[in-house]
Amino acid sequence: MKISDKGDFIMLEDLKQKVYDANMLLPKLDLVTFTWGNVSQIDRELGLFVIKPSGVDYDKLRPEDMVVVNLKGEVVEGDMNPSSDTPTHMYLYNHFPNIGGVVHTHSPWAVSFAQAKKDVQAFGTTHADTFYGDVPAADALTQGEIEGEYELNTGEVIVRTFMERGIDPDAVPAVLVSQHGPFTWGKDAHDAVHNAKVLEVVAEMNYHTSMLNPHTDNHVPQYLLDKHYYRKHGANAYYGQNNAKSKDHAKH
Amino acid sequence: MKISDKGDFIMLEDLKQKVYDANMLLPKLDLVTFTWGNVSQIDRELGLFVIKPSGVDYDKLRPEDMVVVNLKGEVVEGDMNPSSDTPTHMYLYNHFPNIGGVVHTHSPWAVSFAQAKKDVQAFGTTHADTFYGDVPAADALTQGEIEGEYELNTGEVIVRTFMERGIDPDAVPAVLVSQHGPFTWGKDAHDAVHNAKVLEVVAEMNYHTSMLNPHTDNHVPQYLLDKHYYRKHGANAYYGQNNAKSKDHAKH
Amino acid sequence: MKISDKGDFIMLEDLKQKVYDANMLLPKLDLVTFTWGNVSQIDRELGLFVIKPSGVDYDKLRPEDMVVVNLKGEVVEGDMNPSSDTPTHMYLYNHFPNIGGVVHTHSPWAVSFAQAKKDVQAFGTTHADTFYGDVPAADALTQGEIEGEYELNTGEVIVRTFMERGIDPDAVPAVLVSQHGPFTWGKDAHDAVHNAKVLEVVAEMNYHTSMLNPHTDNHVPQYLLDKHYYRKHGANAYYGQNNAKSKDHAKH
Amino acid sequence: MKISDKGDFIMLEDLKQKVYDANMLLPKLDLVTFTWGNVSQIDRELGLFVIKPSGVDYDKLRPEDMVVVNLKGEVVEGDMNPSSDTPTHMYLYNHFPNIGGVVHTHSPWAVSFAQAKKDVQAFGTTHADTFYGDVPAADALTQGEIEGEYELNTGEVIVRTFMERGIDPDAVPAVLVSQHGPFTWGKDAHDAVHNAKVLEVVAEMNYHTSMLNPHTDNHVPQYLLDKHYYRKHGANAYYGQNNAKSKDHAKH
Repeated sequence: MKISDKGDFIMLEDLKQKVYDANMLLPKLDLVTFTWGNVSQIDRELGLFVIKPSGVDYDKLRPEDMVVVNLKGEVVEGDMNPSSDTPTHMYLYNHFPNIGGVVHTHSPWAVSFAQAKKDVQAFGTTHADTFYGDVPAADALTQGEIEGEYELNTGEVIVRTFMERGIDPDAVPAVLVSQHGPFTWGKDAHDAVHNAKVLEVVAEMNYHTSMLNPHTDNHVPQYLLDKHYYRKHGANAYYGQNNAKSKDHAKH
Repeated sequence: MKISDKGDFIMLEDLKQKVYDANMLLPKLDLVTFTWGNVSQIDRELGLFVIKPSGVDYDKLRPEDMVVVNLKGEVVEGDMNPSSDTPTHMYLYNHFPNIGGVVHTHSPWAVSFAQAKKDVQAFGTTHADTFYGDVPAADALTQGEIEGEYELNTGEVIVRTFMERGIDPDAVPAVLVSQHGPFTWGKDAHDAVHNAKVLEVVAEMNYHTSMLNPHTDNHVPQYLLDKHYYRKHGANAYYGQNNAKSKDHAKH
Repeated sequence: MKISDKGDFIMLEDLKQKVYDANMLLPKLDLVTFTWGNVSQIDRELGLFVIKPSGVDYDKLRPEDMVVVNLKGEVVEGDMNPSSDTPTHMYLYNHFPNIGGVVHTHSPWAVSFAQAKKDVQAFGTTHADTFYGDVPAADALTQGEIEGEYELNTGEVIVRTFMERGIDPDAVPAVLVSQHGPFTWGKDAHDAVHNAKVLEVVAEMNYHTSMLNPHTDNHVPQYLLDKHYYRKHGANAYYGQNNAKSKDHAKH
Repeated sequence: MKISDKGDFIMLEDLKQKVYDANMLLPKLDLVTFTWGNVSQIDRELGLFVIKPSGVDYDKLRPEDMVVVNLKGEVVEGDMNPSSDTPTHMYLYNHFPNIGGVVHTHSPWAVSFAQAKKDVQAFGTTHADTFYGDVPAADALTQGEIEGEYELNTGEVIVRTFMERGIDPDAVPAVLVSQHGPFTWGKDAHDAVHNAKVLEVVAEMNYHTSMLNPHTDNHVPQYLLDKHYYRKHGANAYYGQNNAKSKDHAKH
């Protein structure tokens, strides 16, 4: 495959910078140790996504090191190997049509839940502001899935989990891959990193709530989930500066 | 409503700076992730309070972005939407007549207790130096309260909890809103932020004490609560540099 | 009481600087929130100790703010009120004749044990390198002791605990005051701060060990305690650069 | 013993710099409090290793302070006492022929497991990427071993544990010395420090997983361990930029 013309080239340079910036947020937000994280963002029109190269230290990373990959997982541009998790990103872009960015980290609280194969349940408004329901721990991969096309199958098991459990990936933009760690996504790379941080924070809070109340179902009721999620998302949102409703609300 | 004259204008500029400074303390004291916090302070003579705008990043916030609101919750001055929690602040100012500043955060230890609907009990002198008794977990809001004027009802449930349990809000300047997080208050914005940090620290300590002694009532006795609270507060206080009694005490 | 001559004056200026430096280590070592800590050091020849003033922010503290106090607890020099815990420091200097510095903090792990009235038991070599045995949780103060000369009685209960339990304060330079927090001491202010940090670190480690092994006595055996304590202390020490034995040992 | 010629001298200067740099990573990676850590690296041709001096503050340490020691534990060059743990390093170099660097720390999560005498079990891919199986808690040293040549016997008990349990030290480059703390190793000093950090992170994650699932065997299956370990190690590795297989893999 070839990149068609100069306009595409400029768009990709811009995308590389955005993906680089989003990757550099991971150490800033205390979400990675060493090189254990990767962020990508897709250009849906071109059908190409840009992703971090594999195993490069964050303090040596440069925007021009980002690798361009197509939706078959083929490297289209870039001198370095893309992240070893590239097939997982590709699979998610192919099956979750509305997402624009994907993040994988080994952030410690989310990994602790992934290793325990436990959902990060919705225990409070901090969770509900970003995730419209429990963040699922995906089914563990089978031996065949692990020994086969492992990273591709990781994507497959994520998508299968959301389908089987009837979860909308646009409303719950995060998953725990069992015995591994979190993947999050969003409208772009920056948004996906935001969701990775929220997941880490709510995992920490939920752990401590569970220890304080070990024999209780600590879930929020549906109406609280609805209230907080839709306070920030959708046509009636009124949090922040970009919602038509917000000023009225403060005045009512 | 109009701001009456130049004297009021100067007072409000000063108040905006103070509220800005107090908001900027939240990230410095590790009390917020992203934009999840807000601080306000009231001018009781003018009947106006100044509050952070909704959803603005701390590193982009400026003193002139602060929003002026009256005690009916109407925006009096400012181009931005005030914090979505503005009606809660307003309700607290209207019902707790002695308070001058209010803070809301999603600090992780306080939220962990709020999600567990558990009081932060008075287990030690660190607690007693600031809070004269347990910091209550408020009643959970009903479906009607959440689906109605949610942020106003959040204030209502806080005030109701203090009345029902006979807690003096001036002596216990903090609450946990169940399944949500902490609100604290104080004589001004800075003092309310101080109390938000103390609450976070004592919640952390109390969690670990509870895990070390899970089957014990770890409360301090009333006389220790009295001793430490009144060492720092009231006519006989002798902690710090501004108490007539302190020098004598050190010498006796 | 008067400070006798110019030589004494110079010594006290030097002591104030050392006490100031040691106090400033507390925030650097993450041992204090706000003003919740104090450090003192004694000049045994003059019978005077220098201590931090009460309730002053660390970023406003200056060496010349340190307060000089005699062994009756009288302020001898200084414009500010000394720490409200001054009588506790005084009591310790009067009853532990070999100590040169005292520290009090509200560091969170040590406080968690103090609130649980639990010793920080000797579970490993990290502990044994500094503390020759369990760090005791002192008896809780009685109502009379709290309502009387509280800070003096805090010293009294510390000393009583060490006597009743037959603990040598030179070998275990730390205590937890029940429902309150840690006091540590050492040959000077700097050494006492070092011991405050060690106590905080070993309390954290011991908490997690206790959670991993809740039904086990995790104490180290006496011979491991002996080995590690005397590797760093006493005539046969060989850790560091100032022990005659150390070079030989590395070569044997 | 003498250093033979100018070539050797230059090699040792280079080695001192590398060992200094690796030691300075310990505080940067939050692995040490005070002076509680040491790193060494060996030159297998010369049969000499370079190690940190004992008990020197990290902010005063200089490359030229590093001490050169031979494989009998004799100081060959250097004015300072080598780390008191030098005989342990020596023993590991003598019995694990493929290792090039050794690290000892008192990092708090690893110590918590060491004090509990519990293996850090392989619960996830973060672990499997670096450690091909559980990181063992070595047998506790006997009274005789502690009262005899303690640091040498510490090395002996580590090697014995690996032999008795049939663990390959090249595949599991870490151990917990019971009631003490972690030793890690690697192809050089820098790699050994990397492994010390990975151990600390996986210990933290495993602790929380154990608390979430206290009654479950949380081990990963063998095929997941195989997949992740060999994704990064050996002839078929495809993580990072230096593996022939990696680019193909991303494209398949």
